[in-house]
Amino acid sequence: MKIGVFGTGMVGDTIGSKLVELGHEVMMGSRTRDNEKAKAFADKHGGRAKIGTFAEAAEFGEILFNCTAGGGSLDALKSAGESKLNGKILIDIANPLDFSKGMPPTLSIVNTNSLGEEIQKTFPLMKVVKALNTMWCGLMVNPAMIRGGDHNTFISGNDAAAKESVKTLLRSFGWADSNILDLGDISSARGTEMFLPLWLRIWGATQNGAFNIKIVS
Amino acid sequence: MKIGVFGTGMVGDTIGSKLVELGHEVMMGSRTRDNEKAKAFADKHGGRAKIGTFAEAAEFGEILFNCTAGGGSLDALKSAGESKLNGKILIDIANPLDFSKGMPPTLSIVNTNSLGEEIQKTFPLMKVVKALNTMWCGLMVNPAMIRGGDHNTFISGNDAAAKESVKTLLRSFGWADSNILDLGDISSARGTEMFLPLWLRIWGATQNGAFNIKIVS
Repeated sequence: MKIGVFGTGMVGDTIGSKLVELGHEVMMGSRTRDNEKAKAFADKHGGRAKIGTFAEAAEFGEILFNCTAGGGSLDALKSAGESKLNGKILIDIANPLDFSKGMPPTLSIVNTNSLGEEIQKTFPLMKVVKALNTMWCGLMVNPAMIRGGDHNTFISGNDAAAKESVKTLLRSFGWADSNILDLGDISSARGTEMFLPLWLRIWGATQNGAFNIKIVS
Repeated sequence: MKIGVFGTGMVGDTIGSKLVELGHEVMMGSRTRDNEKAKAFADKHGGRAKIGTFAEAAEFGEILFNCTAGGGSLDALKSAGESKLNGKILIDIANPLDFSKGMPPTLSIVNTNSLGEEIQKTFPLMKVVKALNTMWCGLMVNPAMIRGGDHNTFISGNDAAAKESVKTLLRSFGWADSNILDLGDISSARGTEMFLPLWLRIWGATQNGAFNIKIVS
């Protein structure tokens, strides 16, 4: 499958590398065509990964991953252009972290709204599925790293078929169907984004980011 | 130990009943001395539980539990009177749920503040410890009900000795030390209160409130 990955940071590199490893055609998108981190990503994967602008990655991908920093996600998507996004599935991994008020960060969109919803409202013909935003990126693509993969990930989105496509991708990352919990429409992204303040404090208290939560009942 | 329980709802009844069962002297406090639910609580426990006003429960208790609805917690504490609260430990279980904007509820204090912090700021000589606010009340006092009790609860507060006292109480409820995670000062209550929007959506998706989260790593 052709997949566009927005963002050149650790999350984009991790997601993009996993997708290449799984045999997908990947283009990493960024603001400029000569982004150094994107070049390093492409070099690492030889001819198996492309790089381009956000617009080029959007055009290339049948499915898109938003791995940009949450504060810049809307600008990145706007610079890609709505016409190139319409009809595409966007897997939104970003969290709207605001580092301007000290550490740990607060959220710039919160409570009565979420980044996932804001992206969906801004691009109504794109199919936004919030996913994977509740954990460190190493676990997103390798859940088996801890407890044999027996812990949870969540999806939120308005389009049932798009959520099925995302579940298929998540299974290919190693997630068991029984551990993927569909929380409902895109407004449920408020729940997973607002988990970040707790995530950050668990990380602070345990000094270990390679953790996740398992729902027990 | 003499313990004052603020609030006559399901949470206050559950916490108060467990404390009576453990042999503590309990007074349930509410706005008026003739609250019907408080009377039912006292009747259920015969002579082993008292009822009174918030001020009387605050005076009675060496340790206090805030089991009021989050939107009314500050008013309830103010009506008790600061002089009766000074020096006391308050275990704050409440969440600032706002039902005015539809379901699931939003939070009335959030992101750059929390109910726990607001209570601590309003009563600087009281020792506020946020605890148990991340689960259904049945599990608070009976963690062994699921998975042999192997799941997590969190504490937040500025006073180390007060947190030790709360941990002792939590152990008496059945919580293993290794499952009680100290997140830091009272500002970390933002993390546990902001977990509620995710908690509510997990509940909605699974139709089961008797769940908790286990941190796995």
